[in-house]
Amino acid sequence: MIPLNDRGLLLGDGLFETLLALDGQVRHVEAHLDRMAAGCVALGLPALDRDRARDLVLAAPGEAGLVAGRAAVRLTLTAGSGGRGLDRPETPACVLLASCAPAPPAGAPARAVVASVRRNEGSPASRLKTLSYLDNVLARREARAAGADEALMLNNQGHLACASAGNLFWLEGQALSTPALDCGVLAGLARGRVMAAAEGLGLEAREVRAGLEALAGASAVFLTNSLTGVRPLVWLDGRDLGEDPRVAALAAAAG
Amino acid sequence: MIPLNDRGLLLGDGLFETLLALDGQVRHVEAHLDRMAAGCVALGLPALDRDRARDLVLAAPGEAGLVAGRAAVRLTLTAGSGGRGLDRPETPACVLLASCAPAPPAGAPARAVVASVRRNEGSPASRLKTLSYLDNVLARREARAAGADEALMLNNQGHLACASAGNLFWLEGQALSTPALDCGVLAGLARGRVMAAAEGLGLEAREVRAGLEALAGASAVFLTNSLTGVRPLVWLDGRDLGEDPRVAALAAAAG
Repeated sequence: MIPLNDRGLLLGDGLFETLLALDGQVRHVEAHLDRMAAGCVALGLPALDRDRARDLVLAAPGEAGLVAGRAAVRLTLTAGSGGRGLDRPETPACVLLASCAPAPPAGAPARAVVASVRRNEGSPASRLKTLSYLDNVLARREARAAGADEALMLNNQGHLACASAGNLFWLEGQALSTPALDCGVLAGLARGRVMAAAEGLGLEAREVRAGLEALAGASAVFLTNSLTGVRPLVWLDGRDLGEDPRVAALAAAAG
Repeated sequence: MIPLNDRGLLLGDGLFETLLALDGQVRHVEAHLDRMAAGCVALGLPALDRDRARDLVLAAPGEAGLVAGRAAVRLTLTAGSGGRGLDRPETPACVLLASCAPAPPAGAPARAVVASVRRNEGSPASRLKTLSYLDNVLARREARAAGADEALMLNNQGHLACASAGNLFWLEGQALSTPALDCGVLAGLARGRVMAAAEGLGLEAREVRAGLEALAGASAVFLTNSLTGVRPLVWLDGRDLGEDPRVAALAAAAG
């Protein structure tokens, strides 16, 4: 339970991370802590208590009894209790929480629609995993209403940004493209690993500002996040998308 | 206290209203409930339980012992507890909460800076009071860091939208202008009352799409919200702004 005056609850003032645990072993813990620590700086919150965050994350699968197979650990940081209104207390007392739940399978092909909800490229929050995640909830709702699994989100300039829960990539020739962070994109950890794996597979990784039409010439489109890894996008707004064996090679190299 | 798996806490999935209470009497209750009910529809949440919401709001000042002078009642609705991830449960069990705190004085002159954080005009959430309010928190932080009280927010097109906690108006000749809702603007209740009062004072109310330069020719600029009513903006980014006696007349007519 959390107090009713918590700023995470009242204002979405906080951050989260979602980590994959395999057989009780949490993956890429320090990279997730690095990103949350950087998010604290970006939001002007006190420095992350890394030791406490790590302890919570490492203990979460065992406490939930999820030590076999795939599990999702969620680490939540709120700006803590505060008075009325937008202004934070002089020294926020941040709250850290962790939970663990069964995780979806890795690599399942996805069907997507383009959401009407846009990413807010004009806010630093669009490049962070914050507790103000309603736009993503609304985008996902649009996808489900259309019988799809995921939603692609454009920003207000009409540029491709990401999915409601993942980064976006596409292959065309030897180019592996993904939207640039300033399009309103989270610096996903799986995104980073896929980009790092590109060169070894003879691909050139590019961060681009491009509209939906950029996908028309792609041999394959895929989504990435920490929980489900690399997911091929096989259908978009009524159109079947191509398959490319290099997607599986990237998934294996970036695991 | 609220459960740790509440979607308001984890994802900012919910709504709020801030109501003014004077000597224990809450103002404009039905108008606030109308707006929250419309927000539930916009977000795809179950219909608002108006009777329960009204009971909570009306009881809040007494329960907080704030039955003399000005108080702020906050009504919060969350999408309730849910499983992991963005998807809501089939039938969300929304949670309603109310609290009450001392309110700031009405009509105090404000000093503002223009925030770097933009409003997300491409999301319906920008026209609602949602629990995903971090952009407003960040804009207000910019204002405080500059020694100001408030932040003006532009949208991603560069159009004026609102303040971090209020709507924006300006007077020029007989025109009373305010940003249009599709600029990423909450349909503020005080905003509506000010617009309704314009004609009786010989003013023409206009909803506009305009950049910051529109303020250059204004005889006065002011902010509105339910708690502090009409606040003259007397300083913006290093420049003193004009005063106009019609602002006080609008404040009186819109009370």
